[in-house]
Amino acid sequence: NHTHDPSVRSWLASANGHPDFPLQNLPFAVFRRAGSTEPWRGGVALADQVLDLEALRVQGLLSGDAAAALVLAAQSTLNAFMAQGPAAWQALRHALFALLRSDASATVQAAVQPCWVPQANVEYGLPTRIGNYTDFYTSIHHARNVGRIARPDDPLTPNFQWIPIAYHGRASSVVVSGTPFHRPMGQSMPPPGVDMSASSAGAKAPVYGPCARLDYELELGVFIGPGNAQGTTIPLARADDHIFGICLLNDWSARDIQFWEMAPLGPFLGKNFCTSISPWIVTTEALAPFRLPFTRPADEPQPLAYLDAPGDRAHGVLDIALEVQIESAQHRAQGAPGSRVSATSFRHQYWTVAQMVTQHTMGGCNLQPGDLLGTGTISGPTPSEAGAIIELTKGGKEPITLAGGEQRAFLHDNDTVILRGWCEKAGAARIGFGECRGTVLPALGAA
Amino acid sequence: NHTHDPSVRSWLASANGHPDFPLQNLPFAVFRRAGSTEPWRGGVALADQVLDLEALRVQGLLSGDAAAALVLAAQSTLNAFMAQGPAAWQALRHALFALLRSDASATVQAAVQPCWVPQANVEYGLPTRIGNYTDFYTSIHHARNVGRIARPDDPLTPNFQWIPIAYHGRASSVVVSGTPFHRPMGQSMPPPGVDMSASSAGAKAPVYGPCARLDYELELGVFIGPGNAQGTTIPLARADDHIFGICLLNDWSARDIQFWEMAPLGPFLGKNFCTSISPWIVTTEALAPFRLPFTRPADEPQPLAYLDAPGDRAHGVLDIALEVQIESAQHRAQGAPGSRVSATSFRHQYWTVAQMVTQHTMGGCNLQPGDLLGTGTISGPTPSEAGAIIELTKGGKEPITLAGGEQRAFLHDNDTVILRGWCEKAGAARIGFGECRGTVLPALGAA
Repeated sequence: NHTHDPSVRSWLASANGHPDFPLQNLPFAVFRRAGSTEPWRGGVALADQVLDLEALRVQGLLSGDAAAALVLAAQSTLNAFMAQGPAAWQALRHALFALLRSDASATVQAAVQPCWVPQANVEYGLPTRIGNYTDFYTSIHHARNVGRIARPDDPLTPNFQWIPIAYHGRASSVVVSGTPFHRPMGQSMPPPGVDMSASSAGAKAPVYGPCARLDYELELGVFIGPGNAQGTTIPLARADDHIFGICLLNDWSARDIQFWEMAPLGPFLGKNFCTSISPWIVTTEALAPFRLPFTRPADEPQPLAYLDAPGDRAHGVLDIALEVQIESAQHRAQGAPGSRVSATSFRHQYWTVAQMVTQHTMGGCNLQPGDLLGTGTISGPTPSEAGAIIELTKGGKEPITLAGGEQRAFLHDNDTVILRGWCEKAGAARIGFGECRGTVLPALGAA
Repeated sequence: NHTHDPSVRSWLASANGHPDFPLQNLPFAVFRRAGSTEPWRGGVALADQVLDLEALRVQGLLSGDAAAALVLAAQSTLNAFMAQGPAAWQALRHALFALLRSDASATVQAAVQPCWVPQANVEYGLPTRIGNYTDFYTSIHHARNVGRIARPDDPLTPNFQWIPIAYHGRASSVVVSGTPFHRPMGQSMPPPGVDMSASSAGAKAPVYGPCARLDYELELGVFIGPGNAQGTTIPLARADDHIFGICLLNDWSARDIQFWEMAPLGPFLGKNFCTSISPWIVTTEALAPFRLPFTRPADEPQPLAYLDAPGDRAHGVLDIALEVQIESAQHRAQGAPGSRVSATSFRHQYWTVAQMVTQHTMGGCNLQPGDLLGTGTISGPTPSEAGAIIELTKGGKEPITLAGGEQRAFLHDNDTVILRGWCEKAGAARIGFGECRGTVLPALGAA
């Protein structure tokens, strides 16, 4: 696939060697000029610019399937574009690649020029009207780290190695990177405990107050393409056709609220106050060079047949490097950068994105274009690769020290959490996800 | 409130004494003529007719706030109407009441006449574009009945009496009454167990196949009005302003799939294949005569302050009679009616609808107009009042016998489950919800 060729250069010089957004990436977002009342519209990133797809559409440079796809990708949400499927996505991606590569004609370059908007001058919208948001739980290291706090001898639930576990999340409170949120108020059982078992809390009265154990979760977000009709399934062999692309996702979590409420039906208010996503969606096609085989050690349960297919075995895993920074008020006051608190890769995840899609639909549940899946917290095999602060601090008992000396057991007010992701390997252009950031504001007043 | 006066009659004679839809009810739905490609539009039920709100709008009989509300209620979804709040809802309801009461002028009656469509000739749509669906778990009898199967000595989780427990459901698979669905395929651990504890399943391999323990859940559905901005809460004293109305809801449940998947994050595929709702939404105002005081025995935990308010104490409980029928293929073949398997009232619920709304928003989660809440299974205090077959049959161990002699441990293919609800008391007109029905089709083929 020539769009993966790292030797192809763009006539936009700043794109060549750009760590996140070279010609080989071309991720999609929805944007407008910051502070304006312009219509939201689709855009594609190249270097530090946004290619305004509505402006490009007006230029009339594309034809055929690519032109038809451009009309949809230029809309105020990407739902209709995502609904088209891989052929349309590829037609547009390849046409944009041709417009932007160094051998594009002077006429083309002149026509594209007025379509650039500097990323520094834009604000982003949610890329889709998210009809449904589902959060998975597919890192065995995260599951063990968290399970160990509650059940030291038996950290993993017996279904983990058989099912890509998931629960439904709250679509209405998903926000785009940069949107701050208030520390939630909530009910919890004092003293704040991290025991997830149902019988631990005893008969004392719970209290109402600001969350005392606020956490982030490092995740990726998956945007769904065509989807399936209710009462049908998406077999694993075709799951990739329904995966438009991937962004960064922070599943903010109020641990004290969550652990008190979650028996027996799972997290609710502990999660639904805010979920942040990065604005740029990196396409499945752009990620193709960074796929790896899916393997399962012979001494572990092998996936049931419906969760196993040759294609997914061959290239179901994505090697996406990830890191988490905490930037405190002190860091900002001192002009210091945020402090990196963990780094890992999505390649350690126990289940693939395709397996998540198939599992979701196996009973006939309908996925719809623009739906969002979270992968679940991404924690790698070593302690420094943990994707949530509750893991790094062993349930808050062993605070971490940030650059500059501040300690954190959980997040403080005015902390900003920054997620970053990228893919790199020899023989391929490095591509990145940009960042997903969110800042904790002080708690809401009591209701 | 004169719209509750049972002595007021309608000029539509069949409405007077109608068990579900007298003049004092006036519930809302979205409909079109069955089998047509007409636009969906809002309607109001009176007796066995639908008052076509778009046709009524064209007649130009209303003015002021009522006319403005009618424009929104006539749309293809009721989201915009619900967003207006109680003043607009009441303005339209009272204006319709005036048009339809027996002392309406001959001119008015003549203008309304062409707006009737017989209910027998219509099909219903979903009343709103459901942005988010949340399912609560607020019957203490249901929680004890189900909990006892897994934890005989400790059936109730310690949070139950402190929190209106809830989890997020799947909005995309909510369907309107009459829509059949396929028995879901799924993964479960054999032999099918009902033990909800995480450690019970041992190390055997699960199997993939059709759900063997298919159940219904008798619930009510609550449609949300204006809602709240993210980062704000809805105090209990104002929660009623955000409750547009109530319908019947069947939370179909695949118990074998659910109990294998739900540790630690709750139900997912066990619930998301289908949720059925009745087409007619009975308004909060129509239900007002059937409100009762909220009480909590002195020896039980009293609600925390944020879940307690004088107004909710005074009239937070709704006395809505409910019943469940199973109509089998044999019943239909013999021309026999369905078999009533349980009957109860929503007045036994442990938490009020207002408490559910406030709890949902206490951390800043935003409710949006047209969102749907399920109340959770409604089971009363005696065994025959259980709202799910798993309770009636003690986890499938004691099958029930239907009229005609068939036995059921769980639902069979081609069983139809019919929910009905109504309110009646001395000094008030009886009002009803109509019915919510759904039929189990044979399982999907294996993926």
